[in-house]
Amino acid sequence: MNNAALAESIVAELSRRGETLASAESVTGGMIGALLTDVPGASATYLGGVISYATRLKVTLAGVDRSTLAEVGPVAERTAAEMARGVAERCNSDWGLATTGVAGPEPQDGHQVGQVFVAVSHSTRAVSRVEELSLQGGRASIRHQTAEAALGLLADALGLASIA
Amino acid sequence: MNNAALAESIVAELSRRGETLASAESVTGGMIGALLTDVPGASATYLGGVISYATRLKVTLAGVDRSTLAEVGPVAERTAAEMARGVAERCNSDWGLATTGVAGPEPQDGHQVGQVFVAVSHSTRAVSRVEELSLQGGRASIRHQTAEAALGLLADALGLASIA
Repeated sequence: MNNAALAESIVAELSRRGETLASAESVTGGMIGALLTDVPGASATYLGGVISYATRLKVTLAGVDRSTLAEVGPVAERTAAEMARGVAERCNSDWGLATTGVAGPEPQDGHQVGQVFVAVSHSTRAVSRVEELSLQGGRASIRHQTAEAALGLLADALGLASIA
Repeated sequence: MNNAALAESIVAELSRRGETLASAESVTGGMIGALLTDVPGASATYLGGVISYATRLKVTLAGVDRSTLAEVGPVAERTAAEMARGVAERCNSDWGLATTGVAGPEPQDGHQVGQVFVAVSHSTRAVSRVEELSLQGGRASIRHQTAEAALGLLADALGLASIA
């Protein structure tokens, strides 16, 4: 499935379940929100979220612990997981979805271009998964692939993997 | 200019000035953030912001007064202005940019499909402008036109109008 089809199937499945979703985007900068809200009726399940592009907004908007940023930095598994959990808490949503990484053109904080983490969390179930990716391509392609991986991770957690 | 070119010229002008920007998106759901972060080097000026798609997030994330929502609702000039000011305050940015409106397919809260407000604010200068639009077209087109209008409003405030 392409990103638009993934977003559509996620909105349909969440609607069917009566569950809600919030997003905390860094490297994708709003692409996931844009994809989800492109689906008519998205407002029944997608609440919104934050674009924590600047590092300090990962703390103030997305709810990442200051100590996490100090210890592992903005591009890390723990940071991605805390972004997903944090935005879900702040938006009072069932699900949280997060992205952080380096799209380039320059490496950042010692991380290579293409190193990306996507994370999904659920507020009550013991679901919290983070995936690390090493993506190839230019800035636009890395951002696109990251959005796809994040939506894919959520689709998988929702049991939609077989049609992905 | 198309949206990508508008975003590019805004990032360039803000970088030149050493000023920062945050966004609060409702109807555009992250499209503006996605457009701005598609520009290499955007992180020097675009901090991020919120996607306050659900009405209650306009209060909890974007900083709209609860009384404003009670009095004028989510699709209103005052709400758009407070979203722009609110997100700039919360992100400690120089500029705030906001969108709210109805993309359809159904009318919402008594507002027709295509009724949209875009707002720009500056933290210290007496710049706070809101534009009301009545847009035609389908959901995707209305969202696209709204992003264009918001970026255009900011470009105008930055004195980039002559090349817009």
